[in-house]
Amino acid sequence: MLPFARITIVGLGLIGSSLARGIRTFTPTVRITGYDASAEVRETARRIDLCDDVADSAGAAVTDADLVILCVPVGMMGPVAAELADDLPAEAIVSDVGSCKASILAALRGALPQQRIVPAHPVAGTENSGPEAGFATLFRDRWCILTPEADCDPLAVEQVGDFWRRLGAQVEVMEAAHHDLVLAVTSHLPHLIAYTIVGTASDLEDVTRSEVIKYSAGGFRDFTRIAASDPTMWRDVFLANKDAVLEMLQRFSEDLSSLQRAIRWGDGDALFDLFSRTRAVRRSIIEQGQDDAKPDFGRSH
Amino acid sequence: MLPFARITIVGLGLIGSSLARGIRTFTPTVRITGYDASAEVRETARRIDLCDDVADSAGAAVTDADLVILCVPVGMMGPVAAELADDLPAEAIVSDVGSCKASILAALRGALPQQRIVPAHPVAGTENSGPEAGFATLFRDRWCILTPEADCDPLAVEQVGDFWRRLGAQVEVMEAAHHDLVLAVTSHLPHLIAYTIVGTASDLEDVTRSEVIKYSAGGFRDFTRIAASDPTMWRDVFLANKDAVLEMLQRFSEDLSSLQRAIRWGDGDALFDLFSRTRAVRRSIIEQGQDDAKPDFGRSH
Repeated sequence: MLPFARITIVGLGLIGSSLARGIRTFTPTVRITGYDASAEVRETARRIDLCDDVADSAGAAVTDADLVILCVPVGMMGPVAAELADDLPAEAIVSDVGSCKASILAALRGALPQQRIVPAHPVAGTENSGPEAGFATLFRDRWCILTPEADCDPLAVEQVGDFWRRLGAQVEVMEAAHHDLVLAVTSHLPHLIAYTIVGTASDLEDVTRSEVIKYSAGGFRDFTRIAASDPTMWRDVFLANKDAVLEMLQRFSEDLSSLQRAIRWGDGDALFDLFSRTRAVRRSIIEQGQDDAKPDFGRSH
Repeated sequence: MLPFARITIVGLGLIGSSLARGIRTFTPTVRITGYDASAEVRETARRIDLCDDVADSAGAAVTDADLVILCVPVGMMGPVAAELADDLPAEAIVSDVGSCKASILAALRGALPQQRIVPAHPVAGTENSGPEAGFATLFRDRWCILTPEADCDPLAVEQVGDFWRRLGAQVEVMEAAHHDLVLAVTSHLPHLIAYTIVGTASDLEDVTRSEVIKYSAGGFRDFTRIAASDPTMWRDVFLANKDAVLEMLQRFSEDLSSLQRAIRWGDGDALFDLFSRTRAVRRSIIEQGQDDAKPDFGRSH
């Protein structure tokens, strides 16, 4: 028994379009309605037959939905929710896929009359954007974190969890504030650092941009992948999860200063100790199925 | 006409064993002698038939070599060169594969009577170590940088370049000091940052190690790959290329502070500007064949 018969996806970028494809693939009887604020994206969605129906307004997209999933940048969650609030069936469950949860939860509570709001964050993605970048198996073996408020209808939480499991995800429930702290370190800080180093390398005088690109296989290229992620999405994440990101950034900077000092004073033992410790983390990630075991991410050689 | 008939590889880890396999595959008539300071590694090399001969001392390994390639950690280059100096044929060319060149050039000049020293750095690798981690195509389409001194025999430089091209590499010649500056940003700084963030994430109180691993697909896991690289190799790199690494680290820290300030003051435009700029770098790296065009490094989904 499927938890939902009619699902509306608002925002047809990488995640929204992956959801549409995943639903088509794994629960093909579900009727999918899509909407995107961009007329060009709506046109593409129609051309590639992404959804059963592409509506021309957020309101028209949700009129008969069981589940509405907002897949827009974090800063747009509140405005989009306000835009469709009047057309939303009273019994519909509203969810989202945003990367920080406390601010989204507050925005959705402020904009919607709904009691049944079940925020979600599938920890999955690629560096590509847009309706053609999505694929059905993006969420397979990845974690999807639900952050409902304590008074949320448990049945709604169960149904949204069931939905994600059918797309191949593993589901965890936690408080929004804790989510934001965890993701600040496992996702937001890595993106911030990657963006920074790619910027630093682009702005040198003694080393040309062309040299940076030619010799990027020494490690730098790994950082450029996540530094190619969607700029709007990531701007919003840092603004919305400011406190947790600044806290993690402070800790990182302290640790970096300590290594800087070890290098300056030639303290090889301190370097060796850290470099030996970090290998174990990689091993655990592979053992728990959160990355490829193949060397070099399985890049072709 | 092959540039060398008898090649000796000293150090049979990832790079040394990839060289042996590459020579076997692409120039199968060349006779390969190998040596490693570890008896266990020599035993493995014999078992997997990595070389035509595995010698039991560095001196015995080089007695009839045309080309000797040192594939040991940067800090061991000088001691290993001293160990084999007496047995080295006067006409043999000596090369290496170390990640910083000025300190190695000085160490080799100090330890060897040879005039024909052609230091090399193939900008290639994986996070794995040891004689069984190597493969013949590791150097294909990667750059190999040669850093001979100005008075080095041009024929020797040409022969070493020819050798690397036969393994599939592209060859560039530059001064050792410039190499060390370029690689400080494209390789050494990325490794330092990756090691740091993996350490930071391992040491939190409010977020458990288990949570870091579970939700690592949000970006963190990308950093764990290069933070799983060989600890001895990387300790030596940072000690040997101290000045250039500290200079790049200083620039990175300034840029990070500037982003930190933008987040604290909610300056979304500054964030968006940087995040838009960095996308172009990724595109250039892919266009120039230095990374896979497939999303997510081509990881399986």
